Amino acid sequence: MTQKTLSPYKKLETIFKKLTILDEISNLIHWDIEVMMPPSALSMHIDKLQFLAKIRSEIIKNPKIYDLIGNAKSETLDKWQEANLQLMEKNYNLAQAIPIKLEQKFIKASTHCNAVWREARPNNDFKSFAAAFKPMLQLTREMAQIRGEVLKMKPYDALIDQYDPGRKSYEIDAFFSAIQGKIQDLVQSRIESQSPKPDLRGHYPEDIQKALGSECMHDLGFDFDRGRLDISTHPFCSGSMDDIRITTRYNTSDFLQSLMGVLHETGHAIYEMNLPKKWSNQPVGSALGMAIHESQSHFVEMQLVPTKEFMVYLQQKLNKHFPEHADKFTTDALLGNVTHVERSLIRVEADELTYPLHIMLRYQLEKLLISDQLQVDDLPQAWNERMQRLLGVTPTDNKDGCMQDVHWPSGAFGYFPSYTLGSMTAAQLASKCRSDIANYSEQVSVGHFQEIFSWLKNKVHQHGSRFTTADNLLLHATGERLNPQHYLDYLQNKYGN
Amino acid sequence: MTQKTLSPYKKLETIFKKLTILDEISNLIHWDIEVMMPPSALSMHIDKLQFLAKIRSEIIKNPKIYDLIGNAKSETLDKWQEANLQLMEKNYNLAQAIPIKLEQKFIKASTHCNAVWREARPNNDFKSFAAAFKPMLQLTREMAQIRGEVLKMKPYDALIDQYDPGRKSYEIDAFFSAIQGKIQDLVQSRIESQSPKPDLRGHYPEDIQKALGSECMHDLGFDFDRGRLDISTHPFCSGSMDDIRITTRYNTSDFLQSLMGVLHETGHAIYEMNLPKKWSNQPVGSALGMAIHESQSHFVEMQLVPTKEFMVYLQQKLNKHFPEHADKFTTDALLGNVTHVERSLIRVEADELTYPLHIMLRYQLEKLLISDQLQVDDLPQAWNERMQRLLGVTPTDNKDGCMQDVHWPSGAFGYFPSYTLGSMTAAQLASKCRSDIANYSEQVSVGHFQEIFSWLKNKVHQHGSRFTTADNLLLHATGERLNPQHYLDYLQNKYGN
Repeated sequence: MTQKTLSPYKKLETIFKKLTILDEISNLIHWDIEVMMPPSALSMHIDKLQFLAKIRSEIIKNPKIYDLIGNAKSETLDKWQEANLQLMEKNYNLAQAIPIKLEQKFIKASTHCNAVWREARPNNDFKSFAAAFKPMLQLTREMAQIRGEVLKMKPYDALIDQYDPGRKSYEIDAFFSAIQGKIQDLVQSRIESQSPKPDLRGHYPEDIQKALGSECMHDLGFDFDRGRLDISTHPFCSGSMDDIRITTRYNTSDFLQSLMGVLHETGHAIYEMNLPKKWSNQPVGSALGMAIHESQSHFVEMQLVPTKEFMVYLQQKLNKHFPEHADKFTTDALLGNVTHVERSLIRVEADELTYPLHIMLRYQLEKLLISDQLQVDDLPQAWNERMQRLLGVTPTDNKDGCMQDVHWPSGAFGYFPSYTLGSMTAAQLASKCRSDIANYSEQVSVGHFQEIFSWLKNKVHQHGSRFTTADNLLLHATGERLNPQHYLDYLQNKYGN
Repeated sequence: MTQKTLSPYKKLETIFKKLTILDEISNLIHWDIEVMMPPSALSMHIDKLQFLAKIRSEIIKNPKIYDLIGNAKSETLDKWQEANLQLMEKNYNLAQAIPIKLEQKFIKASTHCNAVWREARPNNDFKSFAAAFKPMLQLTREMAQIRGEVLKMKPYDALIDQYDPGRKSYEIDAFFSAIQGKIQDLVQSRIESQSPKPDLRGHYPEDIQKALGSECMHDLGFDFDRGRLDISTHPFCSGSMDDIRITTRYNTSDFLQSLMGVLHETGHAIYEMNLPKKWSNQPVGSALGMAIHESQSHFVEMQLVPTKEFMVYLQQKLNKHFPEHADKFTTDALLGNVTHVERSLIRVEADELTYPLHIMLRYQLEKLLISDQLQVDDLPQAWNERMQRLLGVTPTDNKDGCMQDVHWPSGAFGYFPSYTLGSMTAAQLASKCRSDIANYSEQVSVGHFQEIFSWLKNKVHQHGSRFTTADNLLLHATGERLNPQHYLDYLQNKYGN
């Protein structure tokens, strides 16, 4: 069958396959930048990315897509195809609405702001950062406005929509106010009651940490024929389908830092590996946004790992890889480490109980930044005041305060809530999963994770984006929309007295 | 200045910059396939490469390039721009002449043949290989015919032209008949007179071999801010300008295998690193074909390394990295190893004296294959007979005979002569370089290679493709066109009694 005889819907699939391949190439280049590229090659790699972005833009902005979508709507389509068409239309409408000049200005401004931030942060140089941040923020507002008009939602909601499709800020407001006070109480009581953090420090050589991490990845179901584990400054998971790559960094005196990161990224990776192969080149075959993605990493990092039963499994692994430290590896010492709570300044180092408070801080502030109710120059003060209110600590400088994250300097507004929405979703899924799998804890303690990940595959992974919103997916998987009570129950159960 | 106000020549530069970026992206994907990619990702990576090839084809086949070239010819251009325009016209004419269907059939057939070869070779399965090879060879003939019509040369010459622009097979015939008998005599006398190969075997850990190789690369001028050293099954050099990556493989009982390969690839890499930065995105800024490229690797591998003075330098390095083996590292033992001559079956393992005979074999046979004077089914017999005549050995099977190389299964005909043309060119350059640099040998023995590589940069590297043919470049660099006498003198001097 040649191109000419394809139905409008099938022609659209051909076009969106091209976009997927373009995205995969860009992802590979991003991975190479973080993991492999010699330092001087950065500007060549940026040229590559900009060139691919331009080709992508030309393809998605082609007005013939509009006619194809119109015609495809009268075809007889199955549920997957219908959802795919719906996502195509959304992508096309958004791409059409954003003028190419604005898009290019935004890419330039955010690339610039990110580069300035990388220099300015270590020097605590808020002034330089702010100068690059302000124009980029203004462009973000313009993009948010246009996205909002297309999607018929508020500008900030249109930004959230990029990471959790259909999620509204009024819902997030409600979720966060339902959990904030409770979490603050739990932090307070936990800090008062917990034992000192057991000391696991020692010498843990990098290659053995890598062997340990790889073995745990394999046990969880990561397929090394379809993926890799490498080193980068900022750990991440990238790629898709048969080429999923996660990264970590090793601290030779503390194996838990890398291991916990590797386990987190493995949650992301297995989601990608289990997406529906048949739809791998189409919008409907991709992950359902970052909130669901984080729910999969948080399922592993919070629901699965920091438990007594997982520590039984881990203890075996640690004794095998680090026999000289075996006396340290009691399940109590391990669990005490991974559930230790502390009021701290840095989000990426925060424990799971204080973590959502870090997110609420950023969520509140970025809403104000996008709606122009908070000026960039007032950001440090606003950050420090709210940090004190939420977490009870105040940064002494901006580099460990409002300049600590890569998200805003890269123009990623609306992303932060995904982390806590992901934690909430993970709790809800885990609650159902534990009740569906009879001997859940026993399986974990002996390192049998297949049934758990099959459950996740059936309930979440294999559906790609066909439910189009996280709530629809959760309804299917758990019988209810996102409900923060599961998360509260989980935290109360784990950290309450 | 916007696109619209650019002159025709400048518009062409914009178009060819896109093609360069596309090629760089494809090169990165090829590197990833060989070095990094998880095994299952191959078909995703092939999708990426085919997609990029299609975009490339659309750009280069755009007929508006024809008008731009016509108009650019009446512009006032400098020498570099003139050469660039000439190369653009050649590339465009070739791309225009080859029907897109034929091109796609060829890509498919050569990808298929390569894949079949990878399976068939270890099984010595000539029949399966031949079935995939025949249709690909036929498509190569068709392409060669068309290229020949465009370039006004014989079909096989049009294939050579891809690797050594402008070089004709009648010249190669003359070169090879000038050297063949002499080399065969040298092989015979050397084998009769040489001492047994000194035994350097021992345990040489991979990480120390890597440190040694990296240090030698650095001493030769390889800039690790602009490049990398990695591992792959088949060593190669890829990338361009600020992103040059070479690969090797390690044999822990024989450090010379990897080291000699690394030094060879470093010659390629430094050529790429020294190409004119200003022209890095244009045809005129690229390397002047594979024969000149091989001349740079062979300059290092043959002219620089297997010498008494380099062994003095290397001995220091080896004593530092492998002190436990220091007693083995006499300069005589080292030199005896790297200049040991043997009649052998496998090209990639051959010494420098027998190597050109391996090339002549392939050259003779591929000329016959392309002109349809030799049938694929008769290839094994023809190979074995000529192998016996040229090298005095006969393969016992096809896997170590006519199926040993990747070139033909990949559709790379006309490539093989480049190796020996490169050796000849290296000898001619080295002869001039040694006479231009007063204390050449002393500098090498103490590891001061800067002046030698500056000479190569000035004479060869920095000119990119602006001389458009190797002979023009050699005229500029050495005062004469390619002259095999330098190579013969060099071999006689080194291997004669």
